[in-house]
Amino acid sequence: MSNPILKRRSVRKFKDTPVSREMIDRLLEAAMAAPSACNKRPVDFYVISGEEKLHEISMCGRFTRMKAPLIIVVVGNLKRALPLEFSEYWIQDASAATQNILIEATALGLGSCWCGIHPQKRMVEKVRAALGLTDKEIPLSMIKLGYPDEFPQPHSGYDEKRVHFVE
Amino acid sequence: MSNPILKRRSVRKFKDTPVSREMIDRLLEAAMAAPSACNKRPVDFYVISGEEKLHEISMCGRFTRMKAPLIIVVVGNLKRALPLEFSEYWIQDASAATQNILIEATALGLGSCWCGIHPQKRMVEKVRAALGLTDKEIPLSMIKLGYPDEFPQPHSGYDEKRVHFVE
Repeated sequence: MSNPILKRRSVRKFKDTPVSREMIDRLLEAAMAAPSACNKRPVDFYVISGEEKLHEISMCGRFTRMKAPLIIVVVGNLKRALPLEFSEYWIQDASAATQNILIEATALGLGSCWCGIHPQKRMVEKVRAALGLTDKEIPLSMIKLGYPDEFPQPHSGYDEKRVHFVE
Repeated sequence: MSNPILKRRSVRKFKDTPVSREMIDRLLEAAMAAPSACNKRPVDFYVISGEEKLHEISMCGRFTRMKAPLIIVVVGNLKRALPLEFSEYWIQDASAATQNILIEATALGLGSCWCGIHPQKRMVEKVRAALGLTDKEIPLSMIKLGYPDEFPQPHSGYDEKRVHFVE
């Protein structure tokens, strides 16, 4: 199976081996190739590789404490978001960017795990404090990345009950 | 450039040629391979290919009226969503599924356009009425799909101002 979309599984155990800058650039390029509502692109990327900061960020959530050599935090910036009833499109933009990082990581032979932050208020505040973000910046996801040290098998998530054909 | 993540652009002009059932199945398989918070999988897929219904759905928005032989509407089902402050994770789940459909479509040689529905209230209501959805079902996106009849060139969305390295 070579399709990284189907191959991707959440990986929670990583080798210590660092991820190269070249690979990080490819992950970020994939992230920013995601579509954005009205092309507002209100999404920022915080790339964390220092051991102390990795630990501090990882301790912000209950289910985010596994060790990984790289974390990318995907952040929505409300100052660049659409106005009024469109303002929450940043969530979809940041989710599409997150998903692109997961797929690109799989294609590169890296493992990844999407850990949700927003809309968990306490966790948003903790990550904000750790990264020095303003209250206009909302961290959406914390992506754990690295060379995998566990290999969950791909499994089809296909469920025909979820599909409705409308003629 | 063979990476469909980077190749993907929004396509708004399609040939009349129908999309085969086999391709539709691959799009849906990709969609359901997306991760879901706590594996709740609160996302449904409405596959629309009949001419009248395509027209009806397309008229639900101001910027969704372009003709396409296939629409997939991605719907969050609140009955299967997480509780309390986690309930809005369905938006991220449905966005990741939407993004997977766009990338798989590109890999298959199809064009696609992600048209946002939620959180535009009037549009949500119109699509709900057109598909006979309950008020627990929230359409997130309407994906236009088909063989492209325009070929926007891939362009890097990479913007170094959006990247913050934290040691």
